[in-house]
Amino acid sequence: MSSATQFDQVSVVKKANVYFDGKCVSHALVLADGTRKSVGVILPSTLTFNTGAPEIMECVAGSCRVRLAGEQEWKHYGVGESFNAPANSSFEIACDEPYHYVCHFG
Amino acid sequence: MSSATQFDQVSVVKKANVYFDGKCVSHALVLADGTRKSVGVILPSTLTFNTGAPEIMECVAGSCRVRLAGEQEWKHYGVGESFNAPANSSFEIACDEPYHYVCHFG
Repeated sequence: MSSATQFDQVSVVKKANVYFDGKCVSHALVLADGTRKSVGVILPSTLTFNTGAPEIMECVAGSCRVRLAGEQEWKHYGVGESFNAPANSSFEIACDEPYHYVCHFG
Repeated sequence: MSSATQFDQVSVVKKANVYFDGKCVSHALVLADGTRKSVGVILPSTLTFNTGAPEIMECVAGSCRVRLAGEQEWKHYGVGESFNAPANSSFEIACDEPYHYVCHFG
């Protein structure tokens, strides 16, 4: 995970991805080496996401609480912290403030 | 205005800009030549934006209706269409569906 505030030399898809009536908005990126990521924000809400590929969700501003499928405990993640969501699974995420993230796939 | 679906070789600020309680979410870009733009989406709503620098708002998906400050008429803008908002002014924008845009400054 990088602590830089921006990605350089990337491609950005102009059209956003809008999930849950706009509670989550992201833009897809492709890095120079072909790696795909997304940058996005989740607005205050509690949502359940299903994963295809495994995801690492890195918090770049705000905070969230997360409960992975099969777990009982909610864990808190703030700026610079990440959680791993396994492939073909799901997680619940609760945000009391806008949670800004980078999603790393694979 | 480009008709490409993505920007290449740009820098992207990881943290989003969230306006109007999340009705508008954008990410700032810097192109290879230093030009600043943003990519964003406005969710269904009617909002009033104030401009500093002049802005050209290019629709990349969805549609909107816009009334510039001092005008009486609302004009409709769909995919590939743009409107110019002058500096130090304002515009009202009404979106019945998510309006995906590129904002060109200056």
